[in-house]
Amino acid sequence: MARTRNPELRRARPNSSSREQQDLEPMIEPLSVALPSPFALHRGGVLHQARIAYESWGQLNEARDNAALVFTGLSPSAHAASSERDPQPGWWERIIGPGLALDTTRYFIVCVNSLGSCFGSTGAASIDPATGERYRVSFPEIAVEDIARAGYEAMRALGVECLECVIGASLGGMSVLSFANQFPDASRGLISISGSAAPSAFAIALRSVQREAILRDPDWKGGHYTLDRPPRSGMRIARKLGTITYRSAAELRQRFAREPIEGISGSVGPFAPHFAIEGYLEAQAERFTRVFDPNCYLYLSTAMDRFDLAEHGGSYAAALQKVSAKRVLVIGVESDMLYAIHEQAAIADAFKQNGIPTCFVRMPSLEGHDAFLVDIPRFDAAIRDFFCH
Amino acid sequence: MARTRNPELRRARPNSSSREQQDLEPMIEPLSVALPSPFALHRGGVLHQARIAYESWGQLNEARDNAALVFTGLSPSAHAASSERDPQPGWWERIIGPGLALDTTRYFIVCVNSLGSCFGSTGAASIDPATGERYRVSFPEIAVEDIARAGYEAMRALGVECLECVIGASLGGMSVLSFANQFPDASRGLISISGSAAPSAFAIALRSVQREAILRDPDWKGGHYTLDRPPRSGMRIARKLGTITYRSAAELRQRFAREPIEGISGSVGPFAPHFAIEGYLEAQAERFTRVFDPNCYLYLSTAMDRFDLAEHGGSYAAALQKVSAKRVLVIGVESDMLYAIHEQAAIADAFKQNGIPTCFVRMPSLEGHDAFLVDIPRFDAAIRDFFCH
Repeated sequence: MARTRNPELRRARPNSSSREQQDLEPMIEPLSVALPSPFALHRGGVLHQARIAYESWGQLNEARDNAALVFTGLSPSAHAASSERDPQPGWWERIIGPGLALDTTRYFIVCVNSLGSCFGSTGAASIDPATGERYRVSFPEIAVEDIARAGYEAMRALGVECLECVIGASLGGMSVLSFANQFPDASRGLISISGSAAPSAFAIALRSVQREAILRDPDWKGGHYTLDRPPRSGMRIARKLGTITYRSAAELRQRFAREPIEGISGSVGPFAPHFAIEGYLEAQAERFTRVFDPNCYLYLSTAMDRFDLAEHGGSYAAALQKVSAKRVLVIGVESDMLYAIHEQAAIADAFKQNGIPTCFVRMPSLEGHDAFLVDIPRFDAAIRDFFCH
Repeated sequence: MARTRNPELRRARPNSSSREQQDLEPMIEPLSVALPSPFALHRGGVLHQARIAYESWGQLNEARDNAALVFTGLSPSAHAASSERDPQPGWWERIIGPGLALDTTRYFIVCVNSLGSCFGSTGAASIDPATGERYRVSFPEIAVEDIARAGYEAMRALGVECLECVIGASLGGMSVLSFANQFPDASRGLISISGSAAPSAFAIALRSVQREAILRDPDWKGGHYTLDRPPRSGMRIARKLGTITYRSAAELRQRFAREPIEGISGSVGPFAPHFAIEGYLEAQAERFTRVFDPNCYLYLSTAMDRFDLAEHGGSYAAALQKVSAKRVLVIGVESDMLYAIHEQAAIADAFKQNGIPTCFVRMPSLEGHDAFLVDIPRFDAAIRDFFCH
C-alpha cells in the first residue's frame, strides 16, 4: 500500500514527460521516396504511386554500406531524432545522434514512416490517384510484410542495396523479422526489440477491443468521417487501452499509486476521473486523437494481429532459414504484457536454430512494452554493444 | 508457437462453456429483505426503502449460528447455486451444495446481490420511492463499505447475528474485507478470494476505460437511456475489456492460440473479426449486454476503484485490528492480472499482523482473476480445508 506521495510523481505527471510529448507528429513536411508502381501487397491488393516518408541522419559513405534502417511502432512518425531540418526532439532522441548508440558520425540512419501510416507515407488517409479522393476503407489490406518491403524499397530508392543494420521495436520489431524473411541477404545486422513473430490471443484480444471502440463510434461513419469530426471517442478509448498495455502494472504503481487527480477540469458527477492515472491516460488520449488518422490506426492494428512469421515456411525457424546476417540482437522486456518475454525468447531461438550468431537480452525494465522509449540507459548499452562487435 | 489445434479448444468455444452461460441473470424473481430505512451511505448519500435480493441453501439451525454469507463479484446475481425454487445452475454450482465445499447439509448459505446491482437489490435501475421514477444517475454514490453493510443487514433481517463465515471473490473479496472492518465480531471465519484492499493504478486504469466506453456511447444519454436502447456499444466494449482482464494471457493462449474464428456471421470487410478469441469476447459481450444495467455497472465499477481499506485507521492492519475471527483464509491467484498476487499477500499479512490465524493460499491456476469460477478442484480443496479446521 503506497500512501506516501512518490517523489518521482512530479516528472511522471501528465504533460510533464518530455518523451511522451514527442513521439507522434513530424513538425514539418517529411521527405519521401516513391515505391515501385504498381506495388503489389501481400494480401492481394495493389498500390499505385505509393510513397514512403523518411528522415535520415548522418551520411551515406561512398561504398554505400554504412546505412541502418529503423522501423517504427504503430504510432510514431519517421521523426526519430532531431535534425537541422527539424530541430524538434524525436521519439528516439537519445538513441540516434553523434556518439549515441545509433551513431550518426559512423552510420547513415534512415527511419521510415510505415506504409499504411499517416505521417507522409501512403495509407488510408492518402489520396487515391485513381479517384482523387482519400482511400479511407477502400485502401487495400496492409500486412507487416508490406511494411517491411516498403522499407526495403525506400532504402533502394536512397541508393542502398545492403544495410549495416535493420532495427525496430514493437511493430518495428515485427517488420525487422519480415524484412529478414523477405530479404535474407540485405542486412549484416538485425535488431528486433519487443517484437512478435505471431501475436498472442491476449494481444489480439486487446487490439480487437481498441478497434471495436473506433468502429462503433458513430462518428466513424463506416470510415467516411469528416476531418473536423473524426471518431474521437473511439480513438480516445483505443489509445487509453493501448497506453495501458504498453506499460506495466508495476510502473503505473510506482508512478501513480492511488494519488488523486490534479488540475483536470471538466466533467464532474459520480463517474468523474478521480485518480492521477486517469489524468495520465487522458493526456495520452487527447494528444493521440489530435494527430493520428483513425482508419490508418485500424489498418495497422489489424496488420499486427494477422502477422505470422510461420506462414513463410511452416515455422519461425524455417522463415529465417536463409538469413545471412552476421549478427542478430533480440531484446525483450520482462514486464512486457503485450509481447511477452517468452515470445522474445522464441524469436531468438528461431535465429539460433539457423546457426545465426544471436544475442538475446532480457531487459528487467519496469516500463513494459514501451521500455525502449523510456529505459534509455539499458537500451543504449545493448544497442551500443551490438555495434561494437 | 501453437499451430496445432488444441484438443481443449472445443469445450472453450463461445457458447460451449456451461459456467459462462450461468453467471448473470436469475431466472425467477428473487427473494429480498428490507434494509433499515433510511440507510445512510458511506459517501454521504441516503437510501430509503432499499432492499437486498438473496438466495439461500440449507437450513439455519436453532442456535442460528451456522450461516455463511457469500458476497459476489461485480456482475453475478445472488443465484450462486441451483435450488428447488430455481433449478438453473448457479455461478458457483460446484462449490455450494450437499457435501460440497460450502456444504448445505451443515450450513445455511446465503448469497446476496450487491447493493447497487440490478438483480433484485436496490440500485440505479430501481425505482426511487421519492419520485416513482428510476434513480438512474440520481442514485447516490455507492461504496464497497455500503455493499458490505447491506450484506450484514440482510443477514440480520434473516435472523442471523453471528456468522460461521463470510466469503467472497473479486468485489466479493473486497466486501469481505470491509465487512471485517465494520463488523469485526460478526463472523468466526473470513475468506477473501482474489480481492483487493485498495485497487492498483493498473486496475483503476483498466476499469476507467471500461466506464469511459459506456459514458461516451451516445445511447448512454447522460444515464437516461431507454430500456429498449441502452448504450450497447459501450457495454460491449466494457465487457470485452473486463473479460480480458479476468483471464490470463497463458489461458487465452492455451484455449484459443491463433485459431481462426468459426461460425460468426455478420460484419465483413477489412476489420472483421478474424480469430477465435474475438468470437469468445463477442459471445461474452452479447450475453452481458442483454442483462446488466449500464448505470449499475458504472456505480459498482467506480465503487471498486475508490475502495481503500486503509482509509479506516491508516493502514490495512489498523483497519482489521479489532477482528475477532478465529480463522481467515486469503486466496490469491498467481496469474491474476487485475488484483495481483502480491496484493493478496498484503491482505493476508494485514490479518497476520493482528495475530489472527490466517492461511494464505497462492493458487497456481492459469485462469487469472476468474479462476474461482473455473478452477473448481483447487478452490474446492482450499475452501473445504478451511471448513474442516
